[in-house]
Amino acid sequence: MKKKVGIIGATGYAGAELVRIILSHPLVELAALSSVSFDGKQLSEVYPSFKNICDMVCESADEAVRKSDIIFACLPHGLSQPLAKQCCELNKIFIDLGADFRLHSEEDYAEWYSGKFDDKALHEGAVYSLPELFRDEIKKAKVIANPGCYPTSIALGLAPALKNRIVSADGIIIDSKSGVTGAGRSLTENTHYPVCNEAFSPYKIGSHRHTPEIEQTLSCLCGKRVKVTFVPHLLPVNRGIVSTIYAKLSCDYSLGDIHKIYEDFYKNEQFVRVLSLGKTANLRDVKYSNYCDISIHIDTRTGTLIIVSTIDNMVKGAAGQAVQNMNIALGIDENTGLLFVPPAF
Amino acid sequence: MKKKVGIIGATGYAGAELVRIILSHPLVELAALSSVSFDGKQLSEVYPSFKNICDMVCESADEAVRKSDIIFACLPHGLSQPLAKQCCELNKIFIDLGADFRLHSEEDYAEWYSGKFDDKALHEGAVYSLPELFRDEIKKAKVIANPGCYPTSIALGLAPALKNRIVSADGIIIDSKSGVTGAGRSLTENTHYPVCNEAFSPYKIGSHRHTPEIEQTLSCLCGKRVKVTFVPHLLPVNRGIVSTIYAKLSCDYSLGDIHKIYEDFYKNEQFVRVLSLGKTANLRDVKYSNYCDISIHIDTRTGTLIIVSTIDNMVKGAAGQAVQNMNIALGIDENTGLLFVPPAF
Amino acid sequence: MKKKVGIIGATGYAGAELVRIILSHPLVELAALSSVSFDGKQLSEVYPSFKNICDMVCESADEAVRKSDIIFACLPHGLSQPLAKQCCELNKIFIDLGADFRLHSEEDYAEWYSGKFDDKALHEGAVYSLPELFRDEIKKAKVIANPGCYPTSIALGLAPALKNRIVSADGIIIDSKSGVTGAGRSLTENTHYPVCNEAFSPYKIGSHRHTPEIEQTLSCLCGKRVKVTFVPHLLPVNRGIVSTIYAKLSCDYSLGDIHKIYEDFYKNEQFVRVLSLGKTANLRDVKYSNYCDISIHIDTRTGTLIIVSTIDNMVKGAAGQAVQNMNIALGIDENTGLLFVPPAF
Amino acid sequence: MKKKVGIIGATGYAGAELVRIILSHPLVELAALSSVSFDGKQLSEVYPSFKNICDMVCESADEAVRKSDIIFACLPHGLSQPLAKQCCELNKIFIDLGADFRLHSEEDYAEWYSGKFDDKALHEGAVYSLPELFRDEIKKAKVIANPGCYPTSIALGLAPALKNRIVSADGIIIDSKSGVTGAGRSLTENTHYPVCNEAFSPYKIGSHRHTPEIEQTLSCLCGKRVKVTFVPHLLPVNRGIVSTIYAKLSCDYSLGDIHKIYEDFYKNEQFVRVLSLGKTANLRDVKYSNYCDISIHIDTRTGTLIIVSTIDNMVKGAAGQAVQNMNIALGIDENTGLLFVPPAF
Repeated sequence: MKKKVGIIGATGYAGAELVRIILSHPLVELAALSSVSFDGKQLSEVYPSFKNICDMVCESADEAVRKSDIIFACLPHGLSQPLAKQCCELNKIFIDLGADFRLHSEEDYAEWYSGKFDDKALHEGAVYSLPELFRDEIKKAKVIANPGCYPTSIALGLAPALKNRIVSADGIIIDSKSGVTGAGRSLTENTHYPVCNEAFSPYKIGSHRHTPEIEQTLSCLCGKRVKVTFVPHLLPVNRGIVSTIYAKLSCDYSLGDIHKIYEDFYKNEQFVRVLSLGKTANLRDVKYSNYCDISIHIDTRTGTLIIVSTIDNMVKGAAGQAVQNMNIALGIDENTGLLFVPPAF
Repeated sequence: MKKKVGIIGATGYAGAELVRIILSHPLVELAALSSVSFDGKQLSEVYPSFKNICDMVCESADEAVRKSDIIFACLPHGLSQPLAKQCCELNKIFIDLGADFRLHSEEDYAEWYSGKFDDKALHEGAVYSLPELFRDEIKKAKVIANPGCYPTSIALGLAPALKNRIVSADGIIIDSKSGVTGAGRSLTENTHYPVCNEAFSPYKIGSHRHTPEIEQTLSCLCGKRVKVTFVPHLLPVNRGIVSTIYAKLSCDYSLGDIHKIYEDFYKNEQFVRVLSLGKTANLRDVKYSNYCDISIHIDTRTGTLIIVSTIDNMVKGAAGQAVQNMNIALGIDENTGLLFVPPAF
Repeated sequence: MKKKVGIIGATGYAGAELVRIILSHPLVELAALSSVSFDGKQLSEVYPSFKNICDMVCESADEAVRKSDIIFACLPHGLSQPLAKQCCELNKIFIDLGADFRLHSEEDYAEWYSGKFDDKALHEGAVYSLPELFRDEIKKAKVIANPGCYPTSIALGLAPALKNRIVSADGIIIDSKSGVTGAGRSLTENTHYPVCNEAFSPYKIGSHRHTPEIEQTLSCLCGKRVKVTFVPHLLPVNRGIVSTIYAKLSCDYSLGDIHKIYEDFYKNEQFVRVLSLGKTANLRDVKYSNYCDISIHIDTRTGTLIIVSTIDNMVKGAAGQAVQNMNIALGIDENTGLLFVPPAF
Repeated sequence: MKKKVGIIGATGYAGAELVRIILSHPLVELAALSSVSFDGKQLSEVYPSFKNICDMVCESADEAVRKSDIIFACLPHGLSQPLAKQCCELNKIFIDLGADFRLHSEEDYAEWYSGKFDDKALHEGAVYSLPELFRDEIKKAKVIANPGCYPTSIALGLAPALKNRIVSADGIIIDSKSGVTGAGRSLTENTHYPVCNEAFSPYKIGSHRHTPEIEQTLSCLCGKRVKVTFVPHLLPVNRGIVSTIYAKLSCDYSLGDIHKIYEDFYKNEQFVRVLSLGKTANLRDVKYSNYCDISIHIDTRTGTLIIVSTIDNMVKGAAGQAVQNMNIALGIDENTGLLFVPPAF
């Protein structure tokens, strides 16, 4: 019998993308949707693309938990903690697409999110679930903390270089650009069409909440405390993230050597594609897919390794990775339901 | 054993979209790709989105025919006729995404395409393959002529009204808008980004080659010669067609009655969604899917039925419909491999 | 001494565009801005593009009226009537960019706007101020009612044909498409970037409030009651309107004859460009200008005249035309301050 | 009498933008256009936006030189050198928008452009003409070398910091993003609408030809050889450049101190706007203007100064700056003809 999936916060963008992926998954079935804003409404009223495909009605979070074996939460930070506790007590798989369980340090959580860990034991059982880097731990997780979109693109881009001490851990500069769905479904001035069309700008310079999450993973990768400069930009496209990452070379490897190290690092990974030398990663090529495309480049004049890492912020950066984590938790083939072919345009 | 599929003209936009769909189809397999422009190159060199997914090398058309049971041709008009003949002689299923076999009348073909029917018998065995309207004939077709993108959206939008004599066959006005992929992969001034971004204009006013194809189907639907005014526009989006269709009401039906007729007409059709009254079809909701969304409206002040019909020009308007036709020809469930869920954004 | 201009509702899109134009006008000067939403704030806080150029602080409407000789009102319908009365009593030139004074018939106003004429005498002194068609009356106006954006493009496109009885007044179909600034500065779901980017759809089919305004002008042009079918669409660009207009030919004129009539009709008009035969009007070519570009086409197969008329909805469709009207009211050269060259891209 | 202007290479994007600006300039007049590709054609045939405004016919370069006092050249690199010589000999003002005279070092020119200096004396008389930094020299120039678009945004962004030793000259990282007009009028695959819409990617990583030009200016500013890492990206908008610049703080100044230094540095500059602290520069706010907007930010966690500098690549990055240089050369007010107000949207 298929396991039952419930999605809480189903009418946000990550929730709607989860629905899309879960509906095509051969081994689980969608059992319940929950939404505070659209309680009692059909998903297809909110997103007409789902007409005749998913006309399921949004109900309460409690009802969604009750009906499901696996619960995905797509909630503003702070709201996942009680839900996680409830699901754990009921022995259900809990996958959090929000930020509540991503940070190991309560101090960081307090500083960047002004929150606290309600139940420290629960946080200790939570795993930062970036499969390509922490697969083994995910299997044992009580709470699956799905990574943020920017951190996913950045950690995958830097992991081979940091693990292999190719670059210095100091002075890493990350210039990221995200499509507008990253800002969510809520109406804001910055996402009003005439304001963000034919426009471009960074935002939250040096102060984006993904910063401690990025640093946590990079620190873990190189075994010492890493600090980065991280500047996100709002890109006038619907989907996709491109992170252009600058790091000082700390070795004598040639570009060819480094490329080989990257290829080896990801040789068993379905969802990371290291591009051939001479190619450059483009968000166009990963849109609507669970792929992370990485290209590497050297500025020999300044001794800088430049890594371009791109994902679909809604798939590998949210819903797709969450399903990948679910597959791991269920002990089924990690790629199940995720091998949809990206459109060429 | 799975049937083998070959795609000729695989590196054009319709060809690339066919690859995407065929790769996910459970009952056929991709056996060969052919491209004149990229002979000897991998598809993934042309479209990097296919890296690791389809690195198949383009070869000659002959080789593709030889390796395949089913041949899709995505070629400029005039080039499909010899290929069709060759495939028929070899008893292979031939599905033409070009225009060579769409028109019944050689006179029309001569007038609009400056071509002729090389083999009249072959043309007599060809079927204009819009499944929702001509499903039974498709099963017996020697050559499957896949409809054009504009004509698909228009015929599906008008069929219930014309068949049921709800509107007059005279004076129909069709104002269509297509995304830029409709103009193809070739570089042209009109599709240069700074020329068509933040721009909008009609083109080929009253002279687009889809006009006789539209009229052929509408004439067939209402049993008499129909002439329409058809004006296409270039829309600054990648994908999708919206046809806004204006027809004079020739009956006393209420909007509710007409809506009921539309719902009944399509009640068994998976890929046509008649929207609830009060909703308006939007290309956003059919992008990357094989759906045709139709909404109907009445301007009571002028006695005009207004039909909004939208499809993804590359899917229901090309590759998706071609696979739907292949499924019919193979005698398998018509929806096989086509039930991918459209993204909500 | 330069006349003083006050803009009420200055922080809406039409208001901001008026500021842009007035600041470059050689014969008037900007004296005051008023905004309810941003009272006490600098315009450059609302629109950073104005930094160092117009850092004027928004104040009350009364204050703006007091400081100005000419008052432009950019207000939601219903709010202009008391302001117009106040300005008339003070003998100030009042130019209304809203809808309160556009309709001659109070019945129409009641039906379409659910409003009433507070002061019938004032309405009798108001002139529907489309300069190319009603220039002489504008000079005598007590209240200048600046036309709506859609109606401007449509009236200019149809005027030569209707005045010269080239087409039938019955059965005119108008399929218009507008950029997103037309929907205004307020946040709405339909103008949220991920909702309207890569999307396209009609709205308010047969029920848009510009309909009676369009019909009023067309009726006036041909001397009898005209009813039209009018369907606007939301176009994913910032600016510009394209109206594609379909009318039945009621004469034997050739396309060349009709083109000549159009050229003659507008031969003394600076801001209407009748394109050469064979060219098609494109909103790209009028963006950021006060031009209306018109191209004419015949579908000989159906006897239909097709007129393509395009303007910048914010300039000829709002602020530019308002300044053109101000120039007429002031008795200065109508083109003053309006001859900015449109950018080629 | 007004000085006469000739534009060579008038049908490229920079040329067309020059026409737009020159036509509105009160003290010079457009005398001739030259274009190899469109010889004998009207500019308005190439860019229909110019209809009735500039229907001037393109003629030979020689003819354009003969008719003009001031010659602007918008040519691919290599072609300006003979033209510059010819103009100098005729004592005409020569303003080069191409790259031939930007680099002081012939070695750099050879390395990055594979060219040579045909006439060394001529190159010695050429001035790299970024007015805000080199105003005095421009007045004495024999050849005015108009800066590149990226270098303009970058030099203006870094000048106050480097001149005042606020940041280290080592390890500067520049992540720039340019609208598609920067790639020019020629059709290329990367600028085909479906390829670059909803896409984003860096290009020419560490190898863009503007690199030596950037380094030349920065070296000059801080009095020692500077090397930078420069990565441009193609942004899916028509116009505008945003450069996000990362430099290591080498002082103890607070953000407030540094902001004050920036404001002082540019206090007499019309076309550089240092934004208030807390604001972030956005290309939206400088589009269609000659402004460079600069915002400064500190990442205190890593001791990094982050400068965001944005211009319209076609105005301050090309045609506008060229006119600013012309004004200097003519000894007239530098702002003449350049104070057009940027549109708010």
